[in-house]
Order: sequence, then C-alpha cells, then structure tokens
Amino acid sequence: MKWVQELLKGERLALARVISKLENRDPDVPLLVRSLYPHTGKAQVWGITGPPGAGKSTLVNGLLSQLRAQGKKVAVMAIDPSSPFSGGAILGDRIRMQVHASDRGVFIRSLGTRGKQGGLSLSSKEVVLALDAAGFDVILVETAGVGQTELDILRLAQTVVVVLVPESGDSIQVMKAGLMEIADIFVVNKCDRPQADQLVRELIALAGFVPHDESSWIVPVIQAQGIRNLGVVELEKVIAEHQDFLFQSGKKAQKDLEFLKNEVIDILNERLKKSVFLAFDTSSGQDLLSQLVQRSIDPYQVADLISYS
Amino acid sequence: MKWVQELLKGERLALARVISKLENRDPDVPLLVRSLYPHTGKAQVWGITGPPGAGKSTLVNGLLSQLRAQGKKVAVMAIDPSSPFSGGAILGDRIRMQVHASDRGVFIRSLGTRGKQGGLSLSSKEVVLALDAAGFDVILVETAGVGQTELDILRLAQTVVVVLVPESGDSIQVMKAGLMEIADIFVVNKCDRPQADQLVRELIALAGFVPHDESSWIVPVIQAQGIRNLGVVELEKVIAEHQDFLFQSGKKAQKDLEFLKNEVIDILNERLKKSVFLAFDTSSGQDLLSQLVQRSIDPYQVADLISYS
Repeated sequence: MKWVQELLKGERLALARVISKLENRDPDVPLLVRSLYPHTGKAQVWGITGPPGAGKSTLVNGLLSQLRAQGKKVAVMAIDPSSPFSGGAILGDRIRMQVHASDRGVFIRSLGTRGKQGGLSLSSKEVVLALDAAGFDVILVETAGVGQTELDILRLAQTVVVVLVPESGDSIQVMKAGLMEIADIFVVNKCDRPQADQLVRELIALAGFVPHDESSWIVPVIQAQGIRNLGVVELEKVIAEHQDFLFQSGKKAQKDLEFLKNEVIDILNERLKKSVFLAFDTSSGQDLLSQLVQRSIDPYQVADLISYS
Repeated sequence: MKWVQELLKGERLALARVISKLENRDPDVPLLVRSLYPHTGKAQVWGITGPPGAGKSTLVNGLLSQLRAQGKKVAVMAIDPSSPFSGGAILGDRIRMQVHASDRGVFIRSLGTRGKQGGLSLSSKEVVLALDAAGFDVILVETAGVGQTELDILRLAQTVVVVLVPESGDSIQVMKAGLMEIADIFVVNKCDRPQADQLVRELIALAGFVPHDESSWIVPVIQAQGIRNLGVVELEKVIAEHQDFLFQSGKKAQKDLEFLKNEVIDILNERLKKSVFLAFDTSSGQDLLSQLVQRSIDPYQVADLISYS
C-alpha cells in the first residue's frame, strides 16, 4: 500500500496508479479502498450532465478556472466518450482544457465506458473516494446521457447540474423523464440562441411542479454562454448555495448514507456476478445451462440451484 | 395461473395483465415465468436503437406495416420515454402509430424507465418471454441512448439495428463508443440531408475495422428516409439475412445462451438487492451503516459482514 501513502501526500503518479487499479478491478481493490476510506468524506462532489453538444465541458472548464483562482484543488472525472476530457471531441475543446494540464492543483481523468457491464458504477464511486482521499476540494463528475448507469453514477454527486441547450428538442423529452428527479440546478447554455427563453420558462415551470415545502430546495434555472464564460460565476454561486442547503437541512448526511449503501450493493453484485460465471463454468453448471436452453427448467429454478449450491 | 392459460391462447387482456405483473415485480413473477418459459424460444427479437430524434419510431412503424402485410404477428416494446409508443413525443407521430392500434395482430407496450434502479433489465427480458409465449412472430424492442441498461436490454435482441442521422454530430462520438459493439445493421436515416454520404462512408469504414473473417457478418449500412418509407423494404430484407446468418453460423444458439445466463444473473441480483436492503433495516444493519458513515469500517468490510450474516 505504498501507493496509498504517496497518494495521501498528494503524489500524482501514485494517484494515477491507484485509479488504474480501481478501474481495472485489480485484486488489490478491497485493500486499496480500505486504506483510502478513513481519509474520505471531505471533498465536494459536483455532477455535470446533459446531452452531447450541450457544452458541458466548456462549463466545467469555466468552473475549473474559477475554483483555481480561489486556490481550490480540483479534480475532473469525465465519464463521457464524447468529452474533450476523454480525448473524444473536437480539437479546439481539447486545447482549451490543456491550459490546466500543467497546473498541479488540477487533476483530470476520464473513465472508459467500453465493454463495462455494470462495473462502471462501482469503479467510478471508488475513483471518487481516491480523489477525495488525495485532498481535492472539489471533484467535478461529467457524464453524458440519461442511461441508468449514468443516473446511478450521478447519485455519487452531492450537487447535480443538468445542462441543456435550446435546440435539444426531442432530447429534452428524454431528459425530463429521468433527469428531473436528480437535477439540483438547471443550466440553459447557449442562451443567446432562439427559443432559449421558452426553454427557461419551461424548466422553471417544471421545477415548480415538483412537490416542495418551505424547507425544500427549488431547482434554479441559470442562463449561460459557456463559450464566453457568461453565467459561470452565477453557477458557482448557486452550487455553493446548494451545498450550504445540503448541510443545513441534514440532506448531506442522507445523501452520504445512500451513496455508501449503493457502494455496498455494487460490491456484492460484483462478487455475485463473478461467482455465478464460475458456477456456469463447472460441468454441473454446463448441464444446468443446457437444460435451460432446452426449456426443461426455467431461469428461476437455475437461480435457486446456483445460489443454494 | 389462469392468466397464463389465456395468454397462451392469445388473449390480449391476459397478456397486458401478465406484463403489468412482470413490470411491477409482483410476488407471482417466478411462477409466471415458470409457466411461460416452456412456450418460449420461437419469436424473432429485433432491437432498434439510436439517439432521440433519429427517427427510430417512424422506421419501427414502417417495419410494422410491412410485417403485417406478410401476415406476421408483431409486438413492439418501447423502452424510451421520448418514443411516441410511450406517449412521449410529438402528436403527429402518435397518430401515425394509432393506425395499428385496432389491429389484433399488433401489440404495443411501453415500459417505464422512471425510478427503476437496475430492475428494468430483468423485467424487459421477462416481458419479451411473455410476448414470445403469446405467439408473436416478431418482437421489436425500441430503446434510446447508449446507457449501460439500454445496452444490456439490447442484448436480448438477436438482431440490433442502430439508427443514426447525419446531424447527430457529437452524439455519433458517443454512439461509436458503445454501439459499434452491438450493431448488426446501421441505418442512416434522413439520408437526403447534407453530410449523409459522409456518415455512410464513415460507418462503412468503421464496420470494416471490426476484426472479421470469411464467416463473419459484415455490418451493412442502409440509407433510409423513414418518413417517406424509403429504405424500409431493404432494411427488412437485411434483417432477414442477418437472422439466416445467425441460424446457419450457430450464433443464434450462442446468443440465446448469453441471454439466459444474463437472465439468471439479473434474478440473483434482484434477490441480493432485496436482502441487502432488509439487512440494512435491522438494528445491526443500522449499526453497521453508522460505523460506515463515521469511517470506522469500510464498504468492503460491510459487504463481508452482510453476506456472511
């Protein structure tokens, strides 16, 4: 656990090394998490999500600059193959991000999504623990899309910012369905475009529909033009207000608990999956599978037989 | 299990009833699946996916009309909040779909995605089993997005059609990341728009990059204009070729086996989740959780303690 000692001292190489181990599901993962865990619980975790092309990365970049100017240490975890942080998007974006590449108070990492079957949720939670233990004040988690895994990953953020653009059109239908439930703040980006006002009004109305009382957080709608750095100061201010709200209302503790419960379930799921695949590989497992294919037993019977063996 | 008997005779009310029970995770689910299962394994399952606004539903509608003209019984399962099949999209689309509403050879059902935490994958697999047992020749599964759950659901389809449009822009970056691995057929829809040719060339090049030998399926790229019903005949022809390919190459049996393995894992995951939440609710579970929050034990230790208790 030499790597963990160095990570706690702020060594970037050690941090990168530990993250790789977490991402590749190294056999050391449980030990790594065990030694990191007592040093966690201090960072603010902000989630930034929205459809591809909404300008999430530009906003993240603006937030990064602002937080750095305040002397805060910031990590970005991008779970989005189209993000310039993942090397996936247009060159201009990538160059803009590189301003931060030589800054030791900034750490940028993208997590691959290829071929991961459910493991992404667990490894991204554990990468956040590593970044937290490494002493970053703010961890920005950027995801795209509205899939279940992405929603699950966003649950690790204390404050979730949903970025939309006027021309999202149909996407908004999708976003409304799943993201209304997790959005703490809406940003209407590229707010100089036609129909921006209409989208703002629509979102304000939506936020009003969510049942709330005096002590609830009313989801604010912020207008921004990330590319001109407009609205970023206000966004950071509102995020800070939301963080204060979480503390004062006791919701922070509640969110932490949910996060930790889900982490335990993810760990058990990962183990389950491994053990079921091992069971299928035995000769009696193969026998069960061929009976299943022939329809002489059903999936629930196989589940019973495997879990009681 | 009266409902199952009627479902097997083709009663639509019984089918709707059984699907609701599956979707709501009724305690009868294991028994239902047990009685349905011997009658499954006959239907062709086609997956249709792509970003919101790509025109998936219009293509599905075209395929529906064509299959009906051939006398085939067709079911549509939409897992997409923006789909007109889910009542989520623009009125025009919804009306077009209603042409089929009074046709007894067509069954359309949307599965909600709100607030489902991972259970969607299991219930959608079981709904497909129910539709299969009810005697539908073809089951069309429509999903949006590239989330892990959507990819997982698409694994239940034997043939996966990925629909893209020239203006997808950044989305394509996203799609490439996850969907290349599951696409059996690409459709470039709205192919009269600028840059359609470029997208077609790009996809053909991509398909060529996937390692293949003489016996492999080379992913074809079809140009369509769903709204004018152009390309739909060709699409259905290519899907039929892919189904033949699956049978002759033995890949069908392989896919069935994967599908069933994943179903067993989903069943065990569901049980696991239930039992962990029960364990957290006991006084010793609450005790573990508060130690976890205080960082005096770590998530892996909690996982150990819960699974060995």
